[in-house]
Amino acid sequence: MKLTILGCHSATPRWDANPTSQVLEVKGHLFLIDCAEGTQIQLRKFKVKFARIKHIFISHLHGDHFFGLVGLISTFRLLGREADLHVYGPKGIKEAILLQLKLGKSYTNYGLYFHELDSTEPQLLFEDEKVTVTTIPLDHRVYTNGFLFREKLGERTLDIEKARKLNVELSYYHKIKQGADAITKDGVTIPNAEITFDPPPAKSYAYCSDTAYFPAIVPQITEATTLYHESTFLEQHHHLAEKTKHSTAKEAAAIAKKANVGSLILGHYSGRYGNYENFRSEAQELFEHVELAEDGKVFQL
Amino acid sequence: MKLTILGCHSATPRWDANPTSQVLEVKGHLFLIDCAEGTQIQLRKFKVKFARIKHIFISHLHGDHFFGLVGLISTFRLLGREADLHVYGPKGIKEAILLQLKLGKSYTNYGLYFHELDSTEPQLLFEDEKVTVTTIPLDHRVYTNGFLFREKLGERTLDIEKARKLNVELSYYHKIKQGADAITKDGVTIPNAEITFDPPPAKSYAYCSDTAYFPAIVPQITEATTLYHESTFLEQHHHLAEKTKHSTAKEAAAIAKKANVGSLILGHYSGRYGNYENFRSEAQELFEHVELAEDGKVFQL
Repeated sequence: MKLTILGCHSATPRWDANPTSQVLEVKGHLFLIDCAEGTQIQLRKFKVKFARIKHIFISHLHGDHFFGLVGLISTFRLLGREADLHVYGPKGIKEAILLQLKLGKSYTNYGLYFHELDSTEPQLLFEDEKVTVTTIPLDHRVYTNGFLFREKLGERTLDIEKARKLNVELSYYHKIKQGADAITKDGVTIPNAEITFDPPPAKSYAYCSDTAYFPAIVPQITEATTLYHESTFLEQHHHLAEKTKHSTAKEAAAIAKKANVGSLILGHYSGRYGNYENFRSEAQELFEHVELAEDGKVFQL
Repeated sequence: MKLTILGCHSATPRWDANPTSQVLEVKGHLFLIDCAEGTQIQLRKFKVKFARIKHIFISHLHGDHFFGLVGLISTFRLLGREADLHVYGPKGIKEAILLQLKLGKSYTNYGLYFHELDSTEPQLLFEDEKVTVTTIPLDHRVYTNGFLFREKLGERTLDIEKARKLNVELSYYHKIKQGADAITKDGVTIPNAEITFDPPPAKSYAYCSDTAYFPAIVPQITEATTLYHESTFLEQHHHLAEKTKHSTAKEAAAIAKKANVGSLILGHYSGRYGNYENFRSEAQELFEHVELAEDGKVFQL
């Protein structure tokens, strides 16, 4: 999994600080997560091959997560896109986008499919042989979802040397990788576990922004490889976090700790702070593996 | 009049080429003309004191002139704006903006007034003691207006020395500047023209983008101090200009010549050209005083 941060700042775009958008590359997919104003410029700046994006996930309909979507959709049209595009986001997103395209007589030539969300229970949005995407209902001022991207467990790895030594029929190899027991040429059954290794662990990425401190998400994101959790404020502004239904760095760390995730990426910083190292240090009081998002930073998960 | 080009490129925002937006400073006003995606970033980048903007004029509802408006309106809210904001643009603009604010539960705290346009005749949009703004109906794929910003003629300048010599009553000075004849202490009437000079000529700025070659606008913009006219294409792509209802540089120059304007600024360049000097040279075949718009360039008119 490769995560590119296009923007990780809250509120308003500034010339050196972009609001939220990320690209997650996983198993051949390029998933776009949120799409603030200027996202298409960031995609070009960081040389993301953005024609490959087929699925866009919008957490909520605040401008700093959403105002760049109509422009990106229009740009796809101008670039002659033919592939379908799927947009997943809160109810109302379809009307807002289509109204603007209609006013500009700029309907897309490619297939544009909206999947509108209004459930407050986790919901499977996408699934193929290798990956699933599920909503993570969050607690914010408007209806908001995070997203859990989860690889499926791959095939077991065959211990080829042992299989040869034991005279296992070649035609069984495929089934053994899928978990079947082996049968030798002499008809002896060998339990699967004896001639296979566990597959590489399936990775998962949990994106949680924007949200108040909301421990209800913990069961769903437990053991995630990486958690991106918003941390708009430092502890000194805890009251503002409460008031605006955002989180502090320490609260993000508390969620990471409870969920026992592999690592925590912080972002969605308020513009009032000049230096972001304090976000790391406050989070590390509770949880060690903390990374700071930066516009343009790439994480290999 | 001071004109700041925030963006002057057509179609899609790129990291080094912004679509259309301009700021015109005239007689204490800061008028924003069009508002493509990224306009608020450009306003910050070029250090425009954008809280002073009270009137925004949107030519048409194509994304490259309009998709930055909702973000700017939202940013004004986040910055605690209290002053009223007036938006002038095609019918439908109000619904498109309000729907997005509603979805984000982000209505403004300041007064936001929409003045929706659908007339194909020139229409007075704004007037105070010093300046008027009028629509210039254009010919594009969707309903489009240019805008004519015109200073009012100032007061006449009194020839103080002559007034003293002729013994004109001090209390008449104010009326004389407004055009009244003078009366001396001895009761003799002096024709106004004999003791005043003409006021400095009133300047005007005509903004015409986007439009096909459309000579119908000539009477309205005749003798304008400066004309900004779109020139999306060079002559080699004249067929594309016709097809998409845009203009070539030469067509822009033809309008400038017919209207006998003081100078012509070209912009709205298609992304297919690497070098813009050809726009100047093709235009100068017909009209001498040609300037090229550039993102960030400031023109003193």
